[in-house]
Amino acid sequence: MRRAKPEGSLMTPAELHADSIVVDGLIIAKWDRELFEDMRKGGLTMANCTVSVWEGFQQTMNSIADKQKLIRENGDLVMQVRNTADIRKAKELGKTGILFGFQNAHAYEDQIGYVELFKQLGVGIVQMCYNTQNLVGTGCYERDGGLSGFGREIVAEMNRVGVMCDLSHVGSKTSEEVILESKKPVTYSHCLPSGLKEHPRNKSDEELKFIADHGGFVGVTMFTPFLAKGIDATIDDYAEAIEYVMNIVGEDSIGIGTDFTQGHGQDFFEYLTHDKGYARRLTRFGKIINPLGIRTVGEFPNLTETLLKRGHSERTVRKIMGENWVRILADVWGE
Amino acid sequence: MRRAKPEGSLMTPAELHADSIVVDGLIIAKWDRELFEDMRKGGLTMANCTVSVWEGFQQTMNSIADKQKLIRENGDLVMQVRNTADIRKAKELGKTGILFGFQNAHAYEDQIGYVELFKQLGVGIVQMCYNTQNLVGTGCYERDGGLSGFGREIVAEMNRVGVMCDLSHVGSKTSEEVILESKKPVTYSHCLPSGLKEHPRNKSDEELKFIADHGGFVGVTMFTPFLAKGIDATIDDYAEAIEYVMNIVGEDSIGIGTDFTQGHGQDFFEYLTHDKGYARRLTRFGKIINPLGIRTVGEFPNLTETLLKRGHSERTVRKIMGENWVRILADVWGE
Repeated sequence: MRRAKPEGSLMTPAELHADSIVVDGLIIAKWDRELFEDMRKGGLTMANCTVSVWEGFQQTMNSIADKQKLIRENGDLVMQVRNTADIRKAKELGKTGILFGFQNAHAYEDQIGYVELFKQLGVGIVQMCYNTQNLVGTGCYERDGGLSGFGREIVAEMNRVGVMCDLSHVGSKTSEEVILESKKPVTYSHCLPSGLKEHPRNKSDEELKFIADHGGFVGVTMFTPFLAKGIDATIDDYAEAIEYVMNIVGEDSIGIGTDFTQGHGQDFFEYLTHDKGYARRLTRFGKIINPLGIRTVGEFPNLTETLLKRGHSERTVRKIMGENWVRILADVWGE
Repeated sequence: MRRAKPEGSLMTPAELHADSIVVDGLIIAKWDRELFEDMRKGGLTMANCTVSVWEGFQQTMNSIADKQKLIRENGDLVMQVRNTADIRKAKELGKTGILFGFQNAHAYEDQIGYVELFKQLGVGIVQMCYNTQNLVGTGCYERDGGLSGFGREIVAEMNRVGVMCDLSHVGSKTSEEVILESKKPVTYSHCLPSGLKEHPRNKSDEELKFIADHGGFVGVTMFTPFLAKGIDATIDDYAEAIEYVMNIVGEDSIGIGTDFTQGHGQDFFEYLTHDKGYARRLTRFGKIINPLGIRTVGEFPNLTETLLKRGHSERTVRKIMGENWVRILADVWGE
């Protein structure tokens, strides 16, 4: 009997990376042409790029208008994506697809109707809370009273409209309740396991199992303040974290969510680490240096190579690097 | 030894009422000249009149601009009050002083700096939450996770600037934490005891004792949905509720907070009883008829008469009808 040749078995790691759908589930880097060039260098097919953190409705609208202009002006490198057909098109055209995402449902303010307005503008994934309490629930840096009644209405509307609920910076109780409330898969788009390092932002084995058991999805970040080795971490430490999570959630519910912040100065980190962008300090990141080997978006191909080297099959690597993300987004978006 | 004649002992109830400082700690009636005329008829010296419930920052600013114009146009009947000297001036001039109040800290949105802006415009009392969760804490119609970190910052700023924290529609846990957090007296400006009727809006004996023990203040409402006899209640049932509360908090920590809604149509009650003014329904009031004898603001003198008839001294009646309110507001405002 002739054994079928494993798909793509003759490819080099670089060729496999170039052939793969590569998705980054969370980037909060500075929006400029330099970033877009690095995305092309890194072979990114699509990235969830943050357009709102502490901003309210109108500021977020302004942010989206700015970003759409920037994407238009750099149409040789990037295009906006609103559905999975757009992601495939970006792959065909050799461009990076930009998905708009919120890291805070705060931009919805008190208007359920804003969910659909923003969806039409391309906002397909929204983190329910960012670090602290909002109208929907509570973030992971303060006592968490759970999902509010209004929050349940927002989840239902996100389900209806097709916006994925992201829980990375959300408190444990609110997260659990969103997982139970949502009729569509939800995600920790960019998290690390507390099994490797205890941190308010990291997720316990139980939390990872819970989201996976309920059809949810986990994107693994490499943000060094949340890694055991901190700024001394390397891309192998990142791969180890991916493997740790994959052992819990399985190879179909895992993807990448780097949390790249490149291009930003200290002012931006001060903005992120204070409630509402200016009020009390919530945390300190210290020096931010990504793991050696994947310090910038352009080094993304090293991750494919590292995962292959560590013995993962090409099939598994393709799933981790992006195919899983596209499948789960298709499920949530319905297109 | 000659006994001093009790103050005002020769006054009729009507004369005592006319001579007293009469304060209503909460009115949410329709703003128009008819209301102002009824306030004069009722001998009101001052009322905390709601300028914001579900409105955000800009809508509340618009509301205040409208109300200030209306007060200007009816300057023969009313004047805006910002401190206790203004209240005394209103008394002297035979006008009703209008104090601006929020029933929801929502209008502060995410800006601590708005506390002082609104204070300069005359907003001297603010209810921390209205029925549901906001950025500060949670209202009394849903599960209550307590005062948020941002909420603590807002309380500190209200203390600094001189804005009284109102807890009437606030959840039990958030209320307790505001009482402990605030360095100035706080209030249930318009509540009834659950000892007379169980209701999410009513306060238990323990809650009433807790606020009084911590230097706080209780205004008693007569809103019939929260009274045992409902729309069959009379002014004596209202007086009974006042006495019930006074037995717990003492005669120096009690006042009036009617919750008059006169002039509004069904649309307004629909607005009040839905989260954010339009989302899910939180409660139904049913038919709204105030207790016989105090159906309108103009009947306020009947309350003085009823309290006297029930055996309260003129001194005590003066305290209940308004003197206590002025003393506690002077403490919070510092002027």
